[in-house]
Amino acid sequence: MEGFTFSTDVTIRFAETDAQGIAHHASFVVWLEVARVAFLARYAGGYNALRESGIEALTTEVHVRYHRAAYFDETLRIWARCVDLRGARFTYEYRIERDGELVANAYTRHATVDRETYRPTRVPRWLIEAVQTAESATA
Amino acid sequence: MEGFTFSTDVTIRFAETDAQGIAHHASFVVWLEVARVAFLARYAGGYNALRESGIEALTTEVHVRYHRAAYFDETLRIWARCVDLRGARFTYEYRIERDGELVANAYTRHATVDRETYRPTRVPRWLIEAVQTAESATA
Amino acid sequence: MEGFTFSTDVTIRFAETDAQGIAHHASFVVWLEVARVAFLARYAGGYNALRESGIEALTTEVHVRYHRAAYFDETLRIWARCVDLRGARFTYEYRIERDGELVANAYTRHATVDRETYRPTRVPRWLIEAVQTAESATA
Amino acid sequence: MEGFTFSTDVTIRFAETDAQGIAHHASFVVWLEVARVAFLARYAGGYNALRESGIEALTTEVHVRYHRAAYFDETLRIWARCVDLRGARFTYEYRIERDGELVANAYTRHATVDRETYRPTRVPRWLIEAVQTAESATA
Repeated sequence: MEGFTFSTDVTIRFAETDAQGIAHHASFVVWLEVARVAFLARYAGGYNALRESGIEALTTEVHVRYHRAAYFDETLRIWARCVDLRGARFTYEYRIERDGELVANAYTRHATVDRETYRPTRVPRWLIEAVQTAESATA
Repeated sequence: MEGFTFSTDVTIRFAETDAQGIAHHASFVVWLEVARVAFLARYAGGYNALRESGIEALTTEVHVRYHRAAYFDETLRIWARCVDLRGARFTYEYRIERDGELVANAYTRHATVDRETYRPTRVPRWLIEAVQTAESATA
Repeated sequence: MEGFTFSTDVTIRFAETDAQGIAHHASFVVWLEVARVAFLARYAGGYNALRESGIEALTTEVHVRYHRAAYFDETLRIWARCVDLRGARFTYEYRIERDGELVANAYTRHATVDRETYRPTRVPRWLIEAVQTAESATA
Repeated sequence: MEGFTFSTDVTIRFAETDAQGIAHHASFVVWLEVARVAFLARYAGGYNALRESGIEALTTEVHVRYHRAAYFDETLRIWARCVDLRGARFTYEYRIERDGELVANAYTRHATVDRETYRPTRVPRWLIEAVQTAESATA
């Protein structure tokens, strides 16, 4: 995938389908989170490392555009990248594919806050560097 | 309902259905919790009152027996009662109906723990008294 | 709420919270659907009426912007309106409030398809008229 | 695991946690289904093979006993076996472990119905044979 170096696979659970016979659209929002967790695990010691450093990453915005329906037991590939990481904010972009075919694309925005006070706190340097390493692999 | 004095209604959400066209069986487990929360709100100051008194109620057992399928947009009545409340343990029993017809019955068991240490702690007296008041309304 | 005439209330379930102690961001996407279903029930015979007329409404886009965290047992008011209803497409806009305070705003886009063929099909006239009636109440 | 020959791993998603900081108890019910789907995929051509043969497997009973709390990002091993397969009914038993430690055990009961009429229909012979093959591997 052009511009993406990281992906993770998700197989659609039966509980994630709905009475239209397709994966419910809210399930995609959960899968984006699964992809972020896998991204952090690969590049930055994992989401728990972030939490243990006293930081929570809140989700401030979610946007999903659905291009095709997805079905039970299909395996989707979720490409993800972290962009615009500065101050206390960052963005992820995603492309969800099934056998190379576009199923959905999405972005999510996040803010880092202090775990105790829930006040905005800068993204730690180690995370910025880890993400930059990830992204430079793209070039 | 014989033996029950409390009920709460739940309308089935589209997100709670699955590709069989019925409410997914795990949704029922969530509705039981909705009923417990409503029960505590009625009789004992609410679940948040319990949490604020330094106690968490953990779920230690769930049993659901499904008698009929339930469908999107149906309103189910969940009858609930708290039984066997002693020491650090208590049990809820449930009967889920649609227009008086049995859809499922269930029980759940719980343990109260200290919110900080997660060690077992006795159910507070005010909760026992509140529940007894609730149950005596049955007689 | 300026520009909105319809709202429905949702009380946050414990199952909808996450380990950050707040309502999980994907829960909001489900509540938007709850609001759409309630909107259709009020103005257009309900979502089941739509489905029984041989039409499925697919969700093609979801956008949520989170302004404040929401917590277990809080009751949120979801204002919703249907806009840009033409051809086989329509959009809902939402404002989610807690005691009048903005918690999130959102929009979702939808396409109507034939229930058998899943090919795009025009939004039925009765639905357009029902929505226009709803919206004219705004003026 | 004594008596089990099949297992599948599930990593706990953040969306599956709750405000107690642990995996929500209803999440386990979804994971049991994930394990059944993986079991059928290994031994019997998959759950979709069952559905495509005109049969739906309904869940008629769920029982879970929780022994230890489970946490975000932990990987649980779900041991599963199919027992008592006869007529139109069968049972699964499960043991959920974390690093060999018991987290929960469970059973679920199911009934096979005709996909069109939803009337009980015998479990197909190929499924019985596939399951027997699976279980004989236990001996």
